[in-house]
Order: sequence, then structure tokens, then C-alpha cells
Amino acid sequence: MKLVRFGEPGNEKPGLVDADGVLRDASGVIDDYGPETLSPALKEKLSAVDPASLPKAPEGARIGSPVKRIGHFIAIGLNYADHAAETGAAIPNEPIVFSKAPSCLCGPNDDILMPKGSQKLDWEVELAIVIGERCDYVTEEEALSKVFGYALCNDVSERAYQAERGGQWIKGKSAPTFGPLGPWLVTADEVADPQNLSMFLDVNGERMQTGTTSTMIFPVAEIISYLSEFMVLEPGDVITTGTPPGVGLGKKPPIFLKVGDTMHLGIDGLGEQRQTVVGR
Amino acid sequence: MKLVRFGEPGNEKPGLVDADGVLRDASGVIDDYGPETLSPALKEKLSAVDPASLPKAPEGARIGSPVKRIGHFIAIGLNYADHAAETGAAIPNEPIVFSKAPSCLCGPNDDILMPKGSQKLDWEVELAIVIGERCDYVTEEEALSKVFGYALCNDVSERAYQAERGGQWIKGKSAPTFGPLGPWLVTADEVADPQNLSMFLDVNGERMQTGTTSTMIFPVAEIISYLSEFMVLEPGDVITTGTPPGVGLGKKPPIFLKVGDTMHLGIDGLGEQRQTVVGR
Repeated sequence: MKLVRFGEPGNEKPGLVDADGVLRDASGVIDDYGPETLSPALKEKLSAVDPASLPKAPEGARIGSPVKRIGHFIAIGLNYADHAAETGAAIPNEPIVFSKAPSCLCGPNDDILMPKGSQKLDWEVELAIVIGERCDYVTEEEALSKVFGYALCNDVSERAYQAERGGQWIKGKSAPTFGPLGPWLVTADEVADPQNLSMFLDVNGERMQTGTTSTMIFPVAEIISYLSEFMVLEPGDVITTGTPPGVGLGKKPPIFLKVGDTMHLGIDGLGEQRQTVVGR
Repeated sequence: MKLVRFGEPGNEKPGLVDADGVLRDASGVIDDYGPETLSPALKEKLSAVDPASLPKAPEGARIGSPVKRIGHFIAIGLNYADHAAETGAAIPNEPIVFSKAPSCLCGPNDDILMPKGSQKLDWEVELAIVIGERCDYVTEEEALSKVFGYALCNDVSERAYQAERGGQWIKGKSAPTFGPLGPWLVTADEVADPQNLSMFLDVNGERMQTGTTSTMIFPVAEIISYLSEFMVLEPGDVITTGTPPGVGLGKKPPIFLKVGDTMHLGIDGLGEQRQTVVGR
């Protein structure tokens, strides 16, 4: 099932996409999709809903993040061997873990706000995991059962803030609109193999990133199990799992985003995003 | 005013400390203290409440975190010159920013769970800032007006996870119970000068840390202003501001916590915490 939240920022309603791709208003049957509601019980409740029976959402409604609020926005760095190579970094022995401020979350097609004075704004198409159950020392074998679903994420990054301002990456990953998520939260049962999804990202119509989750160094199940040794994961936590080659920093010479640039990205079965960079 | 949340984990009620130090049950007049409620309006509402008029809380009630849920648990590293020196690190030119998983939050006197296989469990007494208003490019001059209040925090750390497992500190800062907060959220109007607070931490009755916030490299106002260039801060975000000298890692030879060890820590006007380390 494809879960959507639609409406103006801060006032989104829950929706579902029907078999014909039409967005339906689920606010009559579902509270919302967020840390308080994502659960096996919600999955069961949703499975009893026929989206086609719901009213249509207003034509042209804005699409918000499919998760109301992120409890913890975790990100994995350098998780594709060829991306690590293009940035000049060594292949990590263990997952590199950092976080994004929860306040960077936005809708999939919202404008990207370039921070004041930013010189090195960059893109990263990524597969995001949305956690549906508490994870505390979970094994790789049980890890996928804790996933509520998957979503497309652009892990927008400011490389100077990330690497030239004092060591920890969070500074370059957290500005408002640096976390477009969606359009859909696709329930895990609809993603046959999270390690076999093609992905792309274009800037101004030019293909920049092409990849597949099959080349991840640490696959989804291992990431969840690994993280759960260091911290408890909770429903509504989002883990974005790293990016394939083709980021601006890796181009020779590097290319960074300017005001007016557009991005278009997608992952098999998880939909597409389109963003325009605007100034502040 | 001193805000408290008391009761069993997950079922805490809001309380207030009266002029005689007696804990009162404020659940009849206040919803709770958390990201959804911390605001100038709540401050105003509280200022109209006479704690002595409220019913007493049950004798011996457990004290929880004074904030129901943390939106973003931010931490500043190496923010006391003498602590930076004891760890062998250079004095930072800009604040070092990392984060703790929101799920590490716990009550001030809850047991500290030693992660499985942990060898380098350590302590850090810290002043924590609780944000009360949205901060987006705030100046140092206006920064303190965005603070709801202050609380005592033990930034519990696993040094091997922090520094020997792949680069970003979050891995060593996020395990469950690594974020004891409280006992009180003291409203900002009761903290005359956040840069003039004495603090201490004892392990098994022996003084390990002694310090004062007057020796911070980056004071509270500068931290808030600085962070707000990189990310939006929201009500309920907690920023723990670094620790003075005397952590286990800095001892010669280093000392780390073992199961059964006890910690006792405090900051002027913000109360005290007592924790015991237990195994998992």
C-alpha cells in the first residue's frame, strides 16, 4: 500500500493511493502516519481499507512528507562502494552513522532552501527505511520484520558545512528542507527486495546519479541490526541508507547547486521527487 | 519555576516544586511538558499558578525526564578548554556538534544500562538548554530569549563506540539511558546567569568532575545562534553543552564505569542526579 500525506505544510491529511494511482483521502478512517501511529496494528487496519472506497483528494493537492514527524532521522554515510571511491574515502569497515535534524523534513516536491552564503549545496538520492516497531538488539534475521515501509529521500547536503566546519557531519545535513521524503511511504510488503531497486537523480535534466541498492556495502537488514546495538530504534524513526555515485562533490571538477537549479529523482516503486533550489 | 514530571516511565504527570521544595501535582492545570506544549504561552500560564495550591505528589514518586519527549537531542563536544586538554584534543575553533538518539532520554535517577560488551562507559556532567521557541538564524543577542529553561544532564558516553567504531560520535552517545535529564526543568527567569553555575560529579563517592560554566569556550547564547545557522531549533529540542574536566577517559590511567558503580552529579540551582550502573 502507498501512504501519502497531502495538504498545506503542517496541516496535511493522511491519504492512500488506489490501484489506478488516484490519491484518496484516508482522514475518515486513519488518524495520521507518524511515530505515535506507525505500528503492526496500523498495517492491519490499512489492509482492511479499500482505497477506491475513499473520497478523492483535491486535484493538485501539495504532497507532504508521508511521515508526520520523524523521531530520529538517522543516515548512513558512504554505503555504496563506488560512491565512497568518488569522494576519495576508504570503504568503511562498519556503517558510518550520522543524523539529520528532524526539522529538515519536508515534502518531496517542496523548494529546497539554499542556506545563506552556501557554496557547496549537493544532492544524494537515497532509499529511506521507516521503522515500524521498537528495535533493541535485533538480529539481521528479524530486522526486516521491524520495517514499516520504504520511501524515497534526497539527503540534501552542504559539503562545506559537512566537512570544513569542525568534524561532525550533522552540520551539513540538517538545514530546513534538507530532508525531502516521499511522495509515498510504501509498506514493506510491497517492496519485494529492498536490495534490488534502481535509482536515479537528474539536475537540470542531466543524469547525475544512476545506481541500484544491490551495490550497498551494508544492506538494510544489517543496518537495522547494527544500529540497534548502539541505540533503540522507535516507530517513526527514519534511516536513509546512503547514496550511489554521482554526487556533485564527486564530479571532476565538483559541481554544486545554484538558485534556480532543479532536481528530479526516483527509486523503482517508490515514486519520484522534483525540487527547485531557492534562495533565503 | 521548577518543572518536574513524576510517575512510572511512559506515564509521568507534570508537576511543580513549591517554595518549600515540595513536589506538587500540576496535571489538573497543565497538559504536560514537551515539544507540543513548551512555548511562551506555557510560561505565562505557569506564572499564574501557585504551586502551593496544587495537591502534593505521592511521596517517593519516581522522577522522570522533565521533558516528555525530545525533538532533537543535540550535544556540543569539547566545550570546556580544560576538558579538551585532558582528552588530548585541540581547542575547537567552532562548536563541535553531534547528537544523541532521542530514545536515550531517561529520568535523573534511573539506572544506567551498560550496553552488552561495553568496556569504556564514561560520565559527563553538563548544563542542558531546553528550547522554547523556534530558532532560525537567531542572533546571539536574541538567543537567550528562545530558551524555555535549563536542566542537569549526564551525557553518558561509551568511548569505544564513540571513537573506535567508525568516526561519528553518535554511536557512543545514544544507548538507552545515556540521557538522564532533570530532576527539574528550571525556567530561564530563575537562572540569573547560565555562565556562572558550579557543577560536580562523583563516582562511588569520589569527586571526579568539578567545574563551572564560566569556563565554557562557546557560551549558551553563542551555541544557540551558531546552531541556528545550520538547522532550525524547535521547542522541546535539548542542547547539552559540553562537560568540564574529570571524565574517565581523561584520567591517567583512564577509569571506566563498571556494573554496580554509582554516580552523583549536580549543578547550582538545577538539582542533583544519582544513578547506578546495571548490566543488560
